[in-house]
Amino acid sequence: MENNLNIFDFDPNAKTRHYKKGEIIQRKGEVNGYTFYVKQGLLRSYIIDSKAKEHIFMFAPEGWVIADVESLEFHSPTELFIDCLEDAEVMIFNHDCLFQPESSRETIIQSAKRLYRRMGVLQRRVIMQMSSPAVDRYNYFVQTYAELAHRIPQHMIASYLGITPQALSTIRGKKIKK
Amino acid sequence: MENNLNIFDFDPNAKTRHYKKGEIIQRKGEVNGYTFYVKQGLLRSYIIDSKAKEHIFMFAPEGWVIADVESLEFHSPTELFIDCLEDAEVMIFNHDCLFQPESSRETIIQSAKRLYRRMGVLQRRVIMQMSSPAVDRYNYFVQTYAELAHRIPQHMIASYLGITPQALSTIRGKKIKK
Repeated sequence: MENNLNIFDFDPNAKTRHYKKGEIIQRKGEVNGYTFYVKQGLLRSYIIDSKAKEHIFMFAPEGWVIADVESLEFHSPTELFIDCLEDAEVMIFNHDCLFQPESSRETIIQSAKRLYRRMGVLQRRVIMQMSSPAVDRYNYFVQTYAELAHRIPQHMIASYLGITPQALSTIRGKKIKK
Repeated sequence: MENNLNIFDFDPNAKTRHYKKGEIIQRKGEVNGYTFYVKQGLLRSYIIDSKAKEHIFMFAPEGWVIADVESLEFHSPTELFIDCLEDAEVMIFNHDCLFQPESSRETIIQSAKRLYRRMGVLQRRVIMQMSSPAVDRYNYFVQTYAELAHRIPQHMIASYLGITPQALSTIRGKKIKK
């Protein structure tokens, strides 16, 4: 992911904030139009289901962008919580500014390219959720987020994969033996 | 979804093809860089897993765009099959042309907006796959694809939802009784 911060210059009100590990920067139910770019640290987005169980949607390390895209698009209240797994430095900008006359063609191209890339990864995730055993999904996670595996607690990786921590432990145990 | 075909004028080689119901227009393993715009008819994309079972990724009626975005982005062979559930008229264009100097700012904006919208729907789908009971996922399907429900065979809706046809039958039976 490129670190060219000029790509966010379409929002004159973009601001940078510092957060502590554990701090929640977006809650369910907000209508904020915010997109978050991680300059430093590690964020995650997740939902809490009707049984009060957490399900992690994605992780966002340095250079990644994270947002509740459904909320941005449909101007509906956010479903996703976003919080910090590490102390973080985050640039916050307003999604709607991207399509204003002031934003350059190059800016829009960079955003579109980033979006297509994210979409490709999401497509893979949906397909694997539907059709792949947990061990394959774990291997894809490690391959995609190689540097993150040691920065994320095991129970959160399990949540992201939709399996129990015990099942993850078994998978990792078998990998080590090989 | 808008029907403004000018948004595909960035590809001077874009072509329109007619297909019959049941015709496969893309197979797994191709490196074609194609994106398909449905002018008329109904397409679907799906994978076939290691146990020869079909899993439907999405449906694309008139005005929708369908492609293997992971393949486009990473220039890898397609995972997704795409075929026609009805006789169809399809415009085929090359994804890479979108970011060439010839394509207008407005064209890129329209593509980006369409992509954000699709991304929002995909986000919802991942979240529901992780956390919602089948009945809720079925209701969301009906709400999202209202006009499609009667055009798609029940076993395909079941496949899309990741449940058995029998389970879908039970859900629909309970809905009718209410």
